[in-house]
Amino acid sequence: MNAPEPGLPMTVPAEGLPARVRIHEVGARDGLQNEKATVPTAVKAEFVRRLAGTGLTTIEATSFVHPKWVPQLADAEDLYRAVADLPVSLPVLVPNERGLDRALALGARRVAVFASATESFARANLNRTVDEALAMFEPVVRRAKAEDVHVRGYLSMCFGDPWEGAVPVPQVVRVCRALLDMGCDELSLGDTIGVATPGHVTALLTALADAGVPVGALGVHFHDTYGQALANTLAALQRGVTTVDASAGGLGGCPYAKSATGNLATEDLVWMLRGLGIDTGVDLGRLVATSVWMAAHLGRPSPSRAVRALSHQEQ
Amino acid sequence: MNAPEPGLPMTVPAEGLPARVRIHEVGARDGLQNEKATVPTAVKAEFVRRLAGTGLTTIEATSFVHPKWVPQLADAEDLYRAVADLPVSLPVLVPNERGLDRALALGARRVAVFASATESFARANLNRTVDEALAMFEPVVRRAKAEDVHVRGYLSMCFGDPWEGAVPVPQVVRVCRALLDMGCDELSLGDTIGVATPGHVTALLTALADAGVPVGALGVHFHDTYGQALANTLAALQRGVTTVDASAGGLGGCPYAKSATGNLATEDLVWMLRGLGIDTGVDLGRLVATSVWMAAHLGRPSPSRAVRALSHQEQ
Repeated sequence: MNAPEPGLPMTVPAEGLPARVRIHEVGARDGLQNEKATVPTAVKAEFVRRLAGTGLTTIEATSFVHPKWVPQLADAEDLYRAVADLPVSLPVLVPNERGLDRALALGARRVAVFASATESFARANLNRTVDEALAMFEPVVRRAKAEDVHVRGYLSMCFGDPWEGAVPVPQVVRVCRALLDMGCDELSLGDTIGVATPGHVTALLTALADAGVPVGALGVHFHDTYGQALANTLAALQRGVTTVDASAGGLGGCPYAKSATGNLATEDLVWMLRGLGIDTGVDLGRLVATSVWMAAHLGRPSPSRAVRALSHQEQ
Repeated sequence: MNAPEPGLPMTVPAEGLPARVRIHEVGARDGLQNEKATVPTAVKAEFVRRLAGTGLTTIEATSFVHPKWVPQLADAEDLYRAVADLPVSLPVLVPNERGLDRALALGARRVAVFASATESFARANLNRTVDEALAMFEPVVRRAKAEDVHVRGYLSMCFGDPWEGAVPVPQVVRVCRALLDMGCDELSLGDTIGVATPGHVTALLTALADAGVPVGALGVHFHDTYGQALANTLAALQRGVTTVDASAGGLGGCPYAKSATGNLATEDLVWMLRGLGIDTGVDLGRLVATSVWMAAHLGRPSPSRAVRALSHQEQ
């Protein structure tokens, strides 16, 4: 056990966990996309710039979705240009070929598509069946790979769905296989409504391993709606997962889950990983300062426990 | 995987976890003791009564500490009399022999003493060294056991201490052994300032097992200051712990950790345990309703994620 530095946990490693975890930071895109008031492009760019300054290496910047659907991200081109010089990976969401065209025109080297594990959410979010959505992504992935662009496949509703309830594991495995067979380099398993518990996480990861999916191709994306995100992350680490999505300050939520407290806060995650002796390269103090700065812009305190404790924000 | 009922997670058990967990509910004592405004005795009694109606079987009712130190609990006798008929265990805190006298006079069958793993906290909380505090508890425990009263030993600052930083595991093991040798039936390992991470929990529980402490004599008491409480609980369950302290609605905090969000919320815990298929006997819907009722009395929303999501409270 090492003596803690101020503002950091003691480090006591546990057996069977990875030595290093890559955090896929989603605050700038997933975190901000549902903000009602428009966040100025300059503030978003400064947010991404500060996030890069914390040591985060993968910062999802924006989405090239049609502005009609996500008005907050209508400035995708301007934002991307404003941060493209940063020495970090800046993946962007591309919903279709038109989005891919816009991303490629800006020189994006990492893109992500957004699929659903359930018919109900595919219908609600994409107005398509699951298989129709996969067919729509096929040319996107093929063209991206032809340009040697890294493709992440988001998979929503991997555990529960607000309309369908429990989501059968084999159904999730099927869509994962389809996305990988299509050419996706990496998948992000989303608990979009935050209902998963650790045994469910273990069961899905075990089933994916049994289906031949390499764990290195998997990330996890938990929401803290019921406070389960970090316990679920621990279960995922115990199954060998080394890519974890999180949102600085816990920004964001799912529009289909009214009271969702949103994404796992990057700070809460970094606290746990630092305590476990798992390297992330992230400076927690700088990250907390970034989230406090962003919270001031948004006019409300961060829901992250660690941000509140380390910044002495009142609850 | 079972289909979820409304307001409950899917049940997907994990290997190597206990079949049943006893929740030691601390909301009425630990949760309320730092409230500035006096909570009327009738409200506290109704709170305990409603908690008992959720299926909780161990509900810490109050503390027989001198009212000068904890004015909120000055009504200990009246409260205990008001709830003594309930068919649940109602442990009470007794800081010394005078407190034990008061508890025994009311017919209490379970008492708890409150020790510290660190010299700094023993000094701050009890104005004694660790060993002086243990010497003070010795006649309390001896007399309680002579009356066949069950004794719990709380142990604060088992992981970190606001003055001393990291707390060495052997130091915690030594005090645990002393409390058990004195006659305590059960210990509660407290992460009073919420700094622990899962590897640290595993390390302490492993060291206690190596020192011959039966895991059945151990409970864990985590604070969610940095969002780690539920992940730490998972680590404890994986080491065989079957007693978990929690506070309905996440009530309470540590007066020495200003921004502490306080105790692990019982609802967040029950969500995870239900998802893991671990029996607690608790009706989550009734528990959420109880916390919402209490939050209305206190005039602020519950910090529990699960309470917020299930009651559609705004954050």
